[in-house]
Amino acid sequence: MDFFFNPRTIAIIGASQIPEKVGSAILSNFLESNFRGKIYPVNPTAKTIYGMKAYPSILDISDEVDVAIVAVRAEITPKIIAECAEKHVKGAIIVSGGFSEIGGEGRRREEEILRIARSSGMRIIGPNCIGIYDPASGVDTMFMPRYRMNRPQSGNIAFISQSGAFGIAILDWAASRGFGISKFISLGNKIDVDEIECIEYLAEDDSTRVIALYLESTSDGRRLMEAARKTVEKKPIVALKAGKTVEGARAVLSHTGSLAGSDKIYDAAFKQSGIIRTYDPQDLFDVSRALANQPPPKGDRIAVITNGGGFGVMTVDFLIEHGLKLAKLSEQTLRILERKLPPITSKINPIDLVGDADAERYRIALEAVAADENVDGIIVIILFQTPTLQPDIVGVISNVSNMRIKPILVCATGGDYARVHVQMLERAGVPVYPSPHRVARAMASLVAYERMRRKIMEKTVTLTA
Amino acid sequence: MDFFFNPRTIAIIGASQIPEKVGSAILSNFLESNFRGKIYPVNPTAKTIYGMKAYPSILDISDEVDVAIVAVRAEITPKIIAECAEKHVKGAIIVSGGFSEIGGEGRRREEEILRIARSSGMRIIGPNCIGIYDPASGVDTMFMPRYRMNRPQSGNIAFISQSGAFGIAILDWAASRGFGISKFISLGNKIDVDEIECIEYLAEDDSTRVIALYLESTSDGRRLMEAARKTVEKKPIVALKAGKTVEGARAVLSHTGSLAGSDKIYDAAFKQSGIIRTYDPQDLFDVSRALANQPPPKGDRIAVITNGGGFGVMTVDFLIEHGLKLAKLSEQTLRILERKLPPITSKINPIDLVGDADAERYRIALEAVAADENVDGIIVIILFQTPTLQPDIVGVISNVSNMRIKPILVCATGGDYARVHVQMLERAGVPVYPSPHRVARAMASLVAYERMRRKIMEKTVTLTA
Repeated sequence: MDFFFNPRTIAIIGASQIPEKVGSAILSNFLESNFRGKIYPVNPTAKTIYGMKAYPSILDISDEVDVAIVAVRAEITPKIIAECAEKHVKGAIIVSGGFSEIGGEGRRREEEILRIARSSGMRIIGPNCIGIYDPASGVDTMFMPRYRMNRPQSGNIAFISQSGAFGIAILDWAASRGFGISKFISLGNKIDVDEIECIEYLAEDDSTRVIALYLESTSDGRRLMEAARKTVEKKPIVALKAGKTVEGARAVLSHTGSLAGSDKIYDAAFKQSGIIRTYDPQDLFDVSRALANQPPPKGDRIAVITNGGGFGVMTVDFLIEHGLKLAKLSEQTLRILERKLPPITSKINPIDLVGDADAERYRIALEAVAADENVDGIIVIILFQTPTLQPDIVGVISNVSNMRIKPILVCATGGDYARVHVQMLERAGVPVYPSPHRVARAMASLVAYERMRRKIMEKTVTLTA
Repeated sequence: MDFFFNPRTIAIIGASQIPEKVGSAILSNFLESNFRGKIYPVNPTAKTIYGMKAYPSILDISDEVDVAIVAVRAEITPKIIAECAEKHVKGAIIVSGGFSEIGGEGRRREEEILRIARSSGMRIIGPNCIGIYDPASGVDTMFMPRYRMNRPQSGNIAFISQSGAFGIAILDWAASRGFGISKFISLGNKIDVDEIECIEYLAEDDSTRVIALYLESTSDGRRLMEAARKTVEKKPIVALKAGKTVEGARAVLSHTGSLAGSDKIYDAAFKQSGIIRTYDPQDLFDVSRALANQPPPKGDRIAVITNGGGFGVMTVDFLIEHGLKLAKLSEQTLRILERKLPPITSKINPIDLVGDADAERYRIALEAVAADENVDGIIVIILFQTPTLQPDIVGVISNVSNMRIKPILVCATGGDYARVHVQMLERAGVPVYPSPHRVARAMASLVAYERMRRKIMEKTVTLTA
């Protein structure tokens, strides 16, 4: 599948200079991106498009074409795909709609396209999708103009979305928060390439540390489970699956025409194959960001360090509710804290450095719990609004995080001043969450993944022994 | 208590020109705010501060002083308070720390201050608090500089916080999101003015539609319940109470020195007195914003309108999990939708207008469900990234919301383009939430408040009958 993400040459079939056309947005986006391959606009009537020579048909291009992006009416799509096959295109991304999602006639079109593709060995993404976005190679088939939808920077989370609309909303949001993406794939009607093959591909992709998956239905639960089980030994899969209530499942049916299946079956399958399940888009990325950036915790004993007592208490509440434990600090840690921190601070976990804490107090507490064998993970709460806290707090947190001995997640919220420091922390690989609920949930997912990974590894060892 | 929010004259005792001093930040903030009353800096050594004449003692001011803001060392605070009493100051806000939160000696200082205040009729907010912020009058005793902490604009949510650190973090966050505040009060050690009196005052305050409360402990549960029960007939109270687990309650003890009390007792008290409970700062404001801006729903039957199927399904899931119902649209509504919407759309609730929806499709669906007697509340999901959606969608939503016949909440997420439209909707009084989970939760709180309000009204009628 690699040619889809790193094509040397692409043809945009349906390229156009008319701004409302999908083929116009796709060509513009490629021209605005850092794509270094060759771009061939295909249009039967235009001579030039945005100053580039246009070709009446893909067959008129003398160069080889790795990937064809197809943005033409559904009725002529099978004919276009036949030409792509004749041209020995490796893969086609069909963004056009008007296929099985509209019923009978559309379904027949899909069957014809698939037949052509199978006989020529050409791979298909879509139809009825928005295709691929790869910030490293500059491939960007998303037909939303850039003023309307921001593109995320390069990162280490791959994102597979069955729904295009869902995908673009989340990418736009991720971009605005500064969260990076390694690769994005919108599957659409997935007549050929499906989530299973994507997972298998991304399992081997070095730029991807976490696979985030938005799923409405799967065609082959057993294969999905097998692919997942193999993948989660190496990297986590975080899935968002809608339709968990009866009413929700019914809505999936009317939305995609596909049976959501009993949610309990999905739930059991996810658990058995080590897929971490989430229920909300925010949660999908909260969890993925933690897993992509921090080392696995050895256990479930968490230390909390805060300069705001209330936030500390709430975080403790949520940690306990997520089944984690409040670490019992070692005698040595308590001695260090007792000696080095002022009397007003609270040394028992949660460690409350109180409202006039400076970065030095954080350093003392953080280094002590990082070295404490009774602590598996650390949550640091920072209220940047307090006047005594200087920007060197960012360096203090990053230094301990860079040691990568145990996971560190930060909870911080606020306006402009806080945001600048949050961005600095995120850049240093420390995920930051705006609320106690969300930081505790993210820590719980780190513990859950490590547990599942070990369980799966043990089973694999038993099987191969 | 009104003089605290609308003083004609204030004295800042401990005012200073040294930037690190709390008294410097408070004076600067008053000078930068829209406060129209007279400001008297008090400092025993300085002749002028920031170009203003400084007074050695409050007793040297010839004018009457409504409110004294006290930012001096704890040791001399009782003496300063005695001078305030002699000056017949109506109220003092003591931001200084070094009182009961540090134990014995601090507790004795509090007792002395309270004795002086009681004998002179002067009211006290604090000590160990950050005081008051009122965007309408410009009173701003928060000693965090404005570059570090944004101030929210005028709005209709009053916010009472026992913890100062919690308060400033949330206000800074609220300001950055454009959420308004009617009044903010930080209670600190609350030796005199407490949350109960604040609730009673805010119940009568016309600028306040919702009272948001962050509580760590209450001194008088019975009085709190009585005050709440009377208030929620008129306006909702939304409370965030930390310490729900055993571990959390223990952390409250070490943070505030006050017993959090059994969480079950709080929970029962909140339920009986009609207080809506939340567990996370984000949730506190999500719920408050819905209650402050939208009319009460008659029942629990919700319609969902979306241009992204996946978001629709997730919202349905969360609505059901929150105990709400998916409205069964009337025959007439279905006929209208069938006639006016294109075949590709899904007319059964959740109404899926699909990815190429324009504002007109939203208008048709929204007007139909707004008129449908089977629908009590409406959630509109808008993926602003889709190319066919033009900015007139904002007018469509606002128009139906302005009819105020049933509550409308919006779910939208994204980057810059989406944010501009989200702000336009918020300005028009339509609360917007970034995820299905949060919009569903907010709708559930509207239903819950209306139910509780009716129940309390019925009981009151029975009692008075």
